[in-house]
Amino acid sequence: MKCISILGSTGSIGTQTLDVVRNNKEKFNIVGLSANNNIDLLEKQIKEFHPVAVSVMNEKKALELKKRLGNIKTKVFYGLDGLTTIATLEASDLIVTAVVGMIGLIPTIEAIKCKKDIALANKETLVTAGEIVMKEAKRNNVAILPVDSEHSAIFQCLMGYTLKDIRRIILTASGGPFRGYKKAQLQDVTVKEALNHPKWNMGKKISIDSATLMNKGLEIIEAKWLFDLSLDQIDVVIHPQSIIHSMVEYKDSSVIAQMGYPDMRVPIQFALTYPSRTKNNYKKLNLLEVATLTFEKPDRDTFPCLNLAYEALRIGGSLPTVLNAANEELVALFIQQRIGFYDIPRIVELALEKHDVQYELTIDEIIQMDRWARNFVKKISFKAV
Amino acid sequence: MKCISILGSTGSIGTQTLDVVRNNKEKFNIVGLSANNNIDLLEKQIKEFHPVAVSVMNEKKALELKKRLGNIKTKVFYGLDGLTTIATLEASDLIVTAVVGMIGLIPTIEAIKCKKDIALANKETLVTAGEIVMKEAKRNNVAILPVDSEHSAIFQCLMGYTLKDIRRIILTASGGPFRGYKKAQLQDVTVKEALNHPKWNMGKKISIDSATLMNKGLEIIEAKWLFDLSLDQIDVVIHPQSIIHSMVEYKDSSVIAQMGYPDMRVPIQFALTYPSRTKNNYKKLNLLEVATLTFEKPDRDTFPCLNLAYEALRIGGSLPTVLNAANEELVALFIQQRIGFYDIPRIVELALEKHDVQYELTIDEIIQMDRWARNFVKKISFKAV
Repeated sequence: MKCISILGSTGSIGTQTLDVVRNNKEKFNIVGLSANNNIDLLEKQIKEFHPVAVSVMNEKKALELKKRLGNIKTKVFYGLDGLTTIATLEASDLIVTAVVGMIGLIPTIEAIKCKKDIALANKETLVTAGEIVMKEAKRNNVAILPVDSEHSAIFQCLMGYTLKDIRRIILTASGGPFRGYKKAQLQDVTVKEALNHPKWNMGKKISIDSATLMNKGLEIIEAKWLFDLSLDQIDVVIHPQSIIHSMVEYKDSSVIAQMGYPDMRVPIQFALTYPSRTKNNYKKLNLLEVATLTFEKPDRDTFPCLNLAYEALRIGGSLPTVLNAANEELVALFIQQRIGFYDIPRIVELALEKHDVQYELTIDEIIQMDRWARNFVKKISFKAV
Repeated sequence: MKCISILGSTGSIGTQTLDVVRNNKEKFNIVGLSANNNIDLLEKQIKEFHPVAVSVMNEKKALELKKRLGNIKTKVFYGLDGLTTIATLEASDLIVTAVVGMIGLIPTIEAIKCKKDIALANKETLVTAGEIVMKEAKRNNVAILPVDSEHSAIFQCLMGYTLKDIRRIILTASGGPFRGYKKAQLQDVTVKEALNHPKWNMGKKISIDSATLMNKGLEIIEAKWLFDLSLDQIDVVIHPQSIIHSMVEYKDSSVIAQMGYPDMRVPIQFALTYPSRTKNNYKKLNLLEVATLTFEKPDRDTFPCLNLAYEALRIGGSLPTVLNAANEELVALFIQQRIGFYDIPRIVELALEKHDVQYELTIDEIIQMDRWARNFVKKISFKAV
């Protein structure tokens, strides 16, 4: 029985993780859950999965939940400390980090220090502090198991081999809702249009990131750290059907790809059952139904976020942290309809330019850089609006 | 240093195997070669690779070669015995069986008994006697390493996993030169048209088999034995671009595919270096250049050979032997322009119908069944012409 805690159990990845657990009750036991504010759903999850402890970001909500639970014995924590408590519960073997944004960093680091394996769905953690996280994982002999469909694909394509056998990886990108659009068409796109992803039904942050292609940029950085690659070993190709989830090209010119209908439960399950594979009844790939798979070059002119991410990774140091933090703030502002679509790359670029890059950072320094970027963005965009 | 003998060194797979060896001189040493009749090329190969021994099918050609070699110390054998001598040379670790047709059976069995690993490019061996060959390989703890691009793909997609993890395999087929044709258009096709494969440059037998889709039928039978699958675990999909060489669907709904430009040197090299992968400079897959991958249902009405192979495998016993032997004879007759394109499936079907199926055969009995089928075909087709 593998004991699992989920950080962010009421979000898209969190609920799908619980669905995988529900289908594999003999294999998994939920010991901890955390939510941001959705205590209605968290309450239901507690009643179904009987965790030892849960945490809610908002203190008031936590107290309300506690009251609602009556004599159910699940402990209720709150705030960032509560999140870290859930990440480090004695009883858990594996932590699914499905919170959105850089807020996942501290709980992830603490979980690693407590020797918990990590099923990583929170890419911002590796983007902002990949070097530290991976070093800490190595030191504690902890597995970082990717949940992102692309990184899970790479991970699956690497089975039986090691990084020294790789020539390069090829990350696929659906291209998002605005694939084929030109700059002029994108000036006035609405939040609703940007959230309308053609292939994946996901949370808001990642949906906007997919529309700007920043998501692929973040994934490049994530891949660099997860798989210890150099920048020129990471290629991106637009693949609108989202059937091939990514590929590894080996040095013998053989390319291994992982495929399937877009269903996050497949990579989630693989992270939970790794290295085994477990039977499920998810939709079987029918290539006759799919009929055609196509590949295109990313349009780096219309979607400048991809280049910004490459550039941040190339220069390194604190720049990926700044890229990530600026992007998080800007996506939030865009969702609140306070800035336009192109303000995202424009202001990220400004932040990268204005930032005084620093190297070999501690976690505290990374948090400082992150704050600097968020403040910078707020100042600039309040001026802008 | 791995010591290698090649049965069929002057054919398409044989010469490409030597090309792989040429590019990996520090890894491989050629100890034995065999040819059918092409002693000009064999002589060149001897002078380049200095094998301990070679064999030529035709005795006169063997004697002529011996004379030409002068004081070169390579021993020259001939006939089927000579082929078996090359297959069992003391010095060799691995035998590449690249001869065409059921003639590969005895040398392969003898090589296995001498505990040589087999890089199997001779699919007819497994089609005609798969159960015996695989049992013998298991008993002698010998690896059967597939060289066929499809089976090598499956083999590569299985890395890190075992057969119990598989839901099914999906063999891809280019569809051959007549993909999209209807029966009426195929009545009078010429040998030249049938040999003109759109994607792979191969020997004559396999090119004709690809045109009739019998090649895919033989591959289904080969896959059944190589990977110990049931018939309903083997699917076939037409994929005209020949970029995805085949796929494995795992029971967790994840599909792993092996891809690359059509280049037999990649699967050959993998069989020789397995489980390692070795650097080469073969053309790197460029999906932007490929742009589109398509998938279609095989047209089982226009290409009845596929169903004949399924049926022979379903009933089992001596039927696959009969299917293979009848097909070998009919392809030879078609190449000699003595029968038409549709005589191949028509007479194979007749042979399957007229054959009195027998089960649990010895090698000698298989050879008898093989002869029965060849004689049957000759009688029928001489009547036909």
